[in-house]
Amino acid sequence: MILNETNSPKTPKKLSELKLPSELKTLSIPQCKELCREIRRLLIKVVSKNGGHLSSNLGTVELSLAIHRVFESPADKIIWDVGHQSYTHKILTGRLNKFSSLRKENGISGFPKPSESVHDGFISGHSSNSISAACGIARGMKLRGDNHHTVVVIGDGAFTGGLAYEGLNNAGKSNDNIIVILNHNDMSISKNVGALAKYLSTIRSKPEYLNTKKTVEKILDSVPSVGAPIKKAIVTSKSALKGALYHSTMFEDFGFVYLGPVDGHNLLETERALATAKSLNKPVFVHVNTVKGKGYYPAEQNPGAFHGVSSFELFAKNPEVISDDSFSAVFGKELTKLAKFDKKICASTAAMKYGTGLQYFAKQFPQRFFDVGIAEQHAVTFSSGLSSAGMLPVFAVYSSFLQRAYDQILHDSSIDNKHIVLAVDRAGFVGEDGETHQGLFDVSFLTTIPNVTIFSPSCYEELSHCLVTALYDTDGIVAIRYPKGNDTSSFDKSDINADFVYTGKNNSTLVITYGRIYENAVKAINITNYCDLLKLTKIYPFENDVIDIVEQYDNIIFFEEGMQSGGIAEHLISSLKHFPKNYKIVAVNGYVKQASVSRQLEIYGFSVEKMIDTIIGVTDEKA
Amino acid sequence: MILNETNSPKTPKKLSELKLPSELKTLSIPQCKELCREIRRLLIKVVSKNGGHLSSNLGTVELSLAIHRVFESPADKIIWDVGHQSYTHKILTGRLNKFSSLRKENGISGFPKPSESVHDGFISGHSSNSISAACGIARGMKLRGDNHHTVVVIGDGAFTGGLAYEGLNNAGKSNDNIIVILNHNDMSISKNVGALAKYLSTIRSKPEYLNTKKTVEKILDSVPSVGAPIKKAIVTSKSALKGALYHSTMFEDFGFVYLGPVDGHNLLETERALATAKSLNKPVFVHVNTVKGKGYYPAEQNPGAFHGVSSFELFAKNPEVISDDSFSAVFGKELTKLAKFDKKICASTAAMKYGTGLQYFAKQFPQRFFDVGIAEQHAVTFSSGLSSAGMLPVFAVYSSFLQRAYDQILHDSSIDNKHIVLAVDRAGFVGEDGETHQGLFDVSFLTTIPNVTIFSPSCYEELSHCLVTALYDTDGIVAIRYPKGNDTSSFDKSDINADFVYTGKNNSTLVITYGRIYENAVKAINITNYCDLLKLTKIYPFENDVIDIVEQYDNIIFFEEGMQSGGIAEHLISSLKHFPKNYKIVAVNGYVKQASVSRQLEIYGFSVEKMIDTIIGVTDEKA
Repeated sequence: MILNETNSPKTPKKLSELKLPSELKTLSIPQCKELCREIRRLLIKVVSKNGGHLSSNLGTVELSLAIHRVFESPADKIIWDVGHQSYTHKILTGRLNKFSSLRKENGISGFPKPSESVHDGFISGHSSNSISAACGIARGMKLRGDNHHTVVVIGDGAFTGGLAYEGLNNAGKSNDNIIVILNHNDMSISKNVGALAKYLSTIRSKPEYLNTKKTVEKILDSVPSVGAPIKKAIVTSKSALKGALYHSTMFEDFGFVYLGPVDGHNLLETERALATAKSLNKPVFVHVNTVKGKGYYPAEQNPGAFHGVSSFELFAKNPEVISDDSFSAVFGKELTKLAKFDKKICASTAAMKYGTGLQYFAKQFPQRFFDVGIAEQHAVTFSSGLSSAGMLPVFAVYSSFLQRAYDQILHDSSIDNKHIVLAVDRAGFVGEDGETHQGLFDVSFLTTIPNVTIFSPSCYEELSHCLVTALYDTDGIVAIRYPKGNDTSSFDKSDINADFVYTGKNNSTLVITYGRIYENAVKAINITNYCDLLKLTKIYPFENDVIDIVEQYDNIIFFEEGMQSGGIAEHLISSLKHFPKNYKIVAVNGYVKQASVSRQLEIYGFSVEKMIDTIIGVTDEKA
Repeated sequence: MILNETNSPKTPKKLSELKLPSELKTLSIPQCKELCREIRRLLIKVVSKNGGHLSSNLGTVELSLAIHRVFESPADKIIWDVGHQSYTHKILTGRLNKFSSLRKENGISGFPKPSESVHDGFISGHSSNSISAACGIARGMKLRGDNHHTVVVIGDGAFTGGLAYEGLNNAGKSNDNIIVILNHNDMSISKNVGALAKYLSTIRSKPEYLNTKKTVEKILDSVPSVGAPIKKAIVTSKSALKGALYHSTMFEDFGFVYLGPVDGHNLLETERALATAKSLNKPVFVHVNTVKGKGYYPAEQNPGAFHGVSSFELFAKNPEVISDDSFSAVFGKELTKLAKFDKKICASTAAMKYGTGLQYFAKQFPQRFFDVGIAEQHAVTFSSGLSSAGMLPVFAVYSSFLQRAYDQILHDSSIDNKHIVLAVDRAGFVGEDGETHQGLFDVSFLTTIPNVTIFSPSCYEELSHCLVTALYDTDGIVAIRYPKGNDTSSFDKSDINADFVYTGKNNSTLVITYGRIYENAVKAINITNYCDLLKLTKIYPFENDVIDIVEQYDNIIFFEEGMQSGGIAEHLISSLKHFPKNYKIVAVNGYVKQASVSRQLEIYGFSVEKMIDTIIGVTDEKA
């Protein structure tokens, strides 16, 4: 049924008429093609409105269909790596009606989420974890006597992360039912980088590269009388030649059967490869070529620009990924300015050149700019290496992804007290990307590591000031954390410094805060008018001045846009010699679900109104 | 001079007669061989007395010599991955006289340590970071106009860690002067595992595997009249065949020039390969075969047993890596017992089967046992996958190495609240391995992650009890942390439970502690006789009972064998509604240098005497 085009009906089917995903298997190829068109229209419509990942999803429409026509989800487990390319999969697995709520508060997630659907095999907001998860799921199923398959879809970008190799190394030897589908579009978020990308592209562009055996035989066949015996000699020999002819790709070296490359927009070809993979009952690697942005001309032409986007005008040609008016851009431009005068400054990104604002630096100083792939561990250790060689390295990274380099910060940088600067972007709430992407842990995990100083600027001017302080007036590891988006602050900026701002008016209650929410704290303080305010810019470690100020107060309220456990408020209270009478921490506990940043600020108590409520509550209590 | 054996003097030279490392270059091969014998005698003598890594160092004697004869340290940077195989390097670079102080308090480190010597290119107590560090150092040097080389020595074991691939992927494309020497002995700590190990062994055992080009040509040459034109056709063709013939190893796919494999105990052969590598001025991969334990019969026969050892009888055949009387063995046996009755229990290790006591489990349940290589990230994500498939996974890992999986615990396990058990071995001070191996951070970083429960048993009986509680009575991620070595406790064990032990006698001072040092706290309390004692077994999160007890006291003293920043004491103080009048935390700040565990306990205030001093100090203060 699946692979036979001739016996299929020609009547077009609509998504809404089908029982999904099971009835996909009953469709003809022409019906599937029609369905792909419908899905693409839906993707463009919803993403243009809600924001999200467009190009990668346009590239995986046929692949998603093929997977669901060949496999039986949820009995077969499907895992999408990084997962932002799983929209079609979501549409095909019971979430068509909710699809317009994509990335909205209480809506469906922009990433696979097992708690949202049994069809989402594993959580996947961070890259490169899929093969390792599949190893566990496949072995678990086998141990329970379940012979279904675990299917991974992983992009070539995710292959730049080391965890993918740890997974390959273990999957290849397992003999379990693991199918790894390489979704190869030559892109992660920026243009893909590294030696592997080049290697994969060779395979992609020259499929005959793999057919060495056939090529040799063809050449030998062309020499009738002598070729045949040589051919026989080669095939029967125990020599290395035979091994080399049968061992064509790195993935076979890792113990996989390799199939491909196939055209991922050709349904029939893709389904044939997947059906073969399924039939082998062992680790199989299927190489699928796709075009990012397929079917939407502006995205095909400029897929990077459409990678992760806010809502955009459907027919606009180049929706910007980051605005010039953003903390990221201010950081990027400031660093570029400083690097003109200081040749020691180097900058790295883990596949987020545009997202972190480093495109300015990259253009001006290509020799000192490094896009290392989705390899945060490498970026930190590499930066420590640069520091060893006398350079001044800056690694710009989203807070949520810096988590991946905890040991490298500790072992490779901190023990030897290397001077490296971490530009921690997207710190705090990040909005619609949800639980997996919140930048709420960096303060907690960085403060567990010795020799770390953390700055948390509240406006562009402070960011620039902190960057200079971090580079030239601070030792060891220096993190500067700043939020996603732009600076809308209106607080008094006459005293820009990298330490703290204190407004002491002899009240008995002190409000302490830092970062973006200082703006709201100023407003709340001004409205209530009976609290003093301490705003930290250098948030850790604490200067004696800060401790002295805090110890003057009977009542302390701490607003912290970050995790409570291990956050600055906890560190501060346990640094005091004299405890306040009342102490209230407003910070984050548990995981923060998708919603707009302003809603998240409100939900967790950081809107002006909520701050006022807290202040009144605490001061009432003491009265 | 280096490569010419004929013009060399035959007089043997002693290490003590040479200016090292520079005069190594003046020696003849026979002189070098004599030196190797002297070095091996010294290694066996010192390691048998001080403990340390014997087998790996016996395997790298000639390689170390060859490196220092071909390169110019410290102008050329030499980085040893993991670094426990760098003893000969240390002897050859100015540390001969101090070598008998190896791993002792104030002595030289068992790992490369840039703060100890300019010849140690990068810190390396944790595996797989070398290539990334080399990328940074090599590029830093190039940017400064320095054309010296950065030389990495990395074992095949370290190649199972994903960071090594992130490094390869970036090094291969760099065109910088990076030489990666694979020290291939088919072992990491346990017998090496995974698909890659098999691949490397194929190359190791069949060097002709690589000479495909030569093999083809030889076959063709054997057919005189016809072979030549075919050969020409192949060589001049643009076909895939040519590519395949020149692309023989994975490392070439990553952009390296590949040299080898060479016999790492043949000085001349090894030096020739290194000299060629040096001359190419681009990324080169040199494959060197060595024999772990070379030159000491018991270690050659049983290299695993001599990997990391305490001092041992020189002629004993099989010094045990872990004693049956250890927390590790008790854990391993208890888990094996439970797994007989529960087929869902699975166990993983990251190349530490013996060190973690999992050899018992591995033997009985090979289908449910997984040695994933030095791949802690994979182990955690894999465990979460197993949990997804309904299994009950336990990952046994040294505290210091668990740091490498911070993001996997958070993203792959915690967000979806997977039930996995982390058996955190070597928690607390670890003694002679020094700064890079201390198990002092796990509590701080694990408590930043939601859905984590931590137990810290103080004796074998509590460990067994906590393991059952973790598996069957606790949700989410459960860590059980226990120290290196054996249980010497004598405290009252009539109330074994997984919560807490409280001895309340209406004193105004409460001492709080957990883990191994509870034993000393009991003694200190009994001697001083005016404090109450609260011992936590479930150390996080806190039950209300615990908070209620603590809030009764005016004076609190917290003894914590772990980092102060983000530790249990800090969390506890900031969980109180009513603060004590006095609060004293005795915990660890900064990095702990090598010494015996008992000395480390004393230095940081956890010996009975030091605890008494603290108690008297605090109670005097309040009086």
